[in-house]
Amino acid sequence: MNVTVGGRTRPQRTVRFDADANSVLLIEQRLLPHEFKIVAARDFRETADAIRHMIVRGAGAIGATAAYGLAQGARAFRGGDPAKFQRHVESVFQTLKAARPTAVDPVNAMHQVRQQLAAGRSVADQQALALAAAEAFADEDVRHCEAIGRHGAKLIRGGMNLLTHCNAGWLAFVDVGSATGPIYAAQARGRKFHVFCDETRPRSQGATLTAWELAQQGVSHQIIADNAAGLLFAQGRIDLVIVGSDRTLGRTGEVANKIGTYTKAVLARRHRVPFYVAIPLSTIDWNLRAGREIPIEERDESEVLGAWGRTAKGRREYVRVANPTSGAFNPGFDVTPADLITGIITPSGIFKPGELWAHRRLLGGPASVH
Amino acid sequence: MNVTVGGRTRPQRTVRFDADANSVLLIEQRLLPHEFKIVAARDFRETADAIRHMIVRGAGAIGATAAYGLAQGARAFRGGDPAKFQRHVESVFQTLKAARPTAVDPVNAMHQVRQQLAAGRSVADQQALALAAAEAFADEDVRHCEAIGRHGAKLIRGGMNLLTHCNAGWLAFVDVGSATGPIYAAQARGRKFHVFCDETRPRSQGATLTAWELAQQGVSHQIIADNAAGLLFAQGRIDLVIVGSDRTLGRTGEVANKIGTYTKAVLARRHRVPFYVAIPLSTIDWNLRAGREIPIEERDESEVLGAWGRTAKGRREYVRVANPTSGAFNPGFDVTPADLITGIITPSGIFKPGELWAHRRLLGGPASVH
Repeated sequence: MNVTVGGRTRPQRTVRFDADANSVLLIEQRLLPHEFKIVAARDFRETADAIRHMIVRGAGAIGATAAYGLAQGARAFRGGDPAKFQRHVESVFQTLKAARPTAVDPVNAMHQVRQQLAAGRSVADQQALALAAAEAFADEDVRHCEAIGRHGAKLIRGGMNLLTHCNAGWLAFVDVGSATGPIYAAQARGRKFHVFCDETRPRSQGATLTAWELAQQGVSHQIIADNAAGLLFAQGRIDLVIVGSDRTLGRTGEVANKIGTYTKAVLARRHRVPFYVAIPLSTIDWNLRAGREIPIEERDESEVLGAWGRTAKGRREYVRVANPTSGAFNPGFDVTPADLITGIITPSGIFKPGELWAHRRLLGGPASVH
Repeated sequence: MNVTVGGRTRPQRTVRFDADANSVLLIEQRLLPHEFKIVAARDFRETADAIRHMIVRGAGAIGATAAYGLAQGARAFRGGDPAKFQRHVESVFQTLKAARPTAVDPVNAMHQVRQQLAAGRSVADQQALALAAAEAFADEDVRHCEAIGRHGAKLIRGGMNLLTHCNAGWLAFVDVGSATGPIYAAQARGRKFHVFCDETRPRSQGATLTAWELAQQGVSHQIIADNAAGLLFAQGRIDLVIVGSDRTLGRTGEVANKIGTYTKAVLARRHRVPFYVAIPLSTIDWNLRAGREIPIEERDESEVLGAWGRTAKGRREYVRVANPTSGAFNPGFDVTPADLITGIITPSGIFKPGELWAHRRLLGGPASVH
C-alpha cells in the first residue's frame, strides 16, 4: 500500500530483501504510528530477533520474514560442503522457528524455502534457490491478500459499520493485508463505510497499526476501547466483523487469533452480526485436531501493566499504569470455536469453517490424511 | 480500610469532612496507585470539580461527596434570609448534580440532605442539620457495604477464582466497597482465593485502583487485559464474577456500569459462571422503566487514545498511544440486561434482578407506584 512521508507518497511493502547487503528490510512497527522507519536485519539472528521482539508481526509478514531469514542464513554460509550446509540451514531454521512458538506461518514459509532449495545441486545453487523461493513466497502473499480482498469486498455494502480487532492489515502481511483486504477492495470500488478499530490491549495494535493504516489509505474510522464493543453491538451499530487469524485449524475451523477475538465472536453471535475471519492459506494448520492443542503464548506482564506511547515532548516512553506491587497474567491468543464463525475468507473464496477440510486440496492442504 | 504509608498502617475513609475548615477531604484517586495523597475541596465548586474530574469516583463515594458538598455549600451561606438561603442551596444542588450527569447517587444523597435540612427553623439550624445529614449518609454507606460483604461472602469458597471489573472497591465508596465487600469479608473469614482484575480501559481503574486496594489488604490477585477474560472463561478458570453498578433499575433489574461490564456478563452466561452485581441501596433507580432510557455519558477521546502512568523517572505523564491522526469513540457505561445477572447483592440480602421491585419497600423504594 501507499505510505506518505514528508508529503511524498510511495508504495511500500512491509517486508523486503536487499540481496546485495543480504539483509531483510522491515518497517520498524514498534515505532509506528508516531514514526515511520525502515530497519535492516543484517543476519538471520537479527531477523529472528526482529520476529521475537515484534519489529515485524502478523501472520504473513512473519512468514515472509522467516522465509527471507532462512535464505539470508543460507546465503551467509561459506564453503561448499553440502552436509555442513544442510546442518547450517537446519540450525537457521530452528533459530527462526523459536522466535514465535505459537505462529505457524514462519514454519510453513520456511518449509517452502527448504523444499525448493533442496533441488539445487551445489551449495551456491541452493543459496540462489533459497532466495528465489523466499521472493516467490512474498509475492504469493501479496496475490493471496488481493484475492481475499476481491472475495471479501462483496460482504461490505455502502453505509455499513465494521469492527476489526488487532492488526491483520498490510503491516501484518507483505502488503494489502487479510482482514483489511476486503476493506481496501471495497474502498477501491467507491463504497463508503466506517470502521471501528478495537484498541487491542495490551499491545494496542488496533489503535496504533490498524488506525495508522486506515488513516494512510483515507478510510473512515474510530478507535474504541476493547470494552466498548459490547455497547456498540447492543445498540445495533456494528454490521460486520472481520478479523485475521494467527492459526486456523483446517480440520475443525477453529481460529487462534489475538487475545480478545473470542470475546468479539461471542458478542457478534448474541447480536446476530456476521463474524468473518480473513486468512491466507499459509495460516491453515492441517495437522492439529482440536483448538485446545494450540499452545497459548504467555507474554511479559509489563505489556499489561503499562503502555508505550509518545509524551507531550515527543519522546517514546513506557509508562507504568498499574499498581506497582501487582502482577499480571498476559496470554497472547485465544481460540474461537467454529460455531461462532460465519465464514472464513480465503484467497480461494469464502467457506464455512466446517467446509475447510472438504476443500483441503483447493486450500493447499494435505492430499492424504494421516 | 487500612492504608500503609511510610511503614505506618492507619484506617482511612475515601471521603471525610473537616467541619472547622468547611472542606471535603478526599483521596486524590488520579494519583493512585503511584502516590497516596489527601486533597481538600475548600468550597462546593471545588467539590463539584473533584467529582467532575474524577479525583473522587464510584457510586457511594460521589454520593457522599455530593452530600458533604451540599452541606459545605449550605454552611458557606452568610446571612439569615430563609428564601435567599433556599435559592442558594438549590444552586449548590444543581452545580453538584451537573458534575456527573449519568450518576444517580449524588442526586439521591443530596435529596436526603435537603430533606433533613428543611426541618431546621433558622438558617443556622438548617446548616447544622445539613452537615449532620451528610455525616449520617456517609456512615450509612459504610454500614451498607459491610452488610453487602456479609451476604456476598457466602458466595466465595476457598480455592475460587473471581473476576472483577473496574473499581467498586472501598475507593468507590466511603469505605469497604460493594463488589469488594464480599472479598474483604471472605478474607476476614480466613478463606483463600484469587482475584483477576480487569484492567478496565480506558481509565484502567481495575489495574490502578482495585489492584492497589487488593494489594493493600493482602488479597491474592493478578491484573488482566480486558481482552483476556474470554480465554479465562473458556479455560474454566473463573468461578464467580462480582461487579458494581452505577445505576440499577429497580423496575427491571437492568444494571448500568462501567463500559465492558456487559461483555463480561455475556461471557459469564456462555460459560455458565455466576454473575453478581453488588450495590448499595442508593444506586437503585426506581423511576426509569427501561435501560435504554439511561443516558450513556460520552467521555473525552483522549482517554482511549493514550494512557496516564508513571515514567521510569517517576514522573506522572500521559502518553499518546494511538495513531496521531485518528479519533476515538468513548462511551463511559453500558447496560447489562437482567437475564444475564445471577443475583444482586444488596445490604438487605441477595435478590434476583426481577425481584427488586417486589421487595422495593425493604430496598428503600417508593411506597406508591407512579
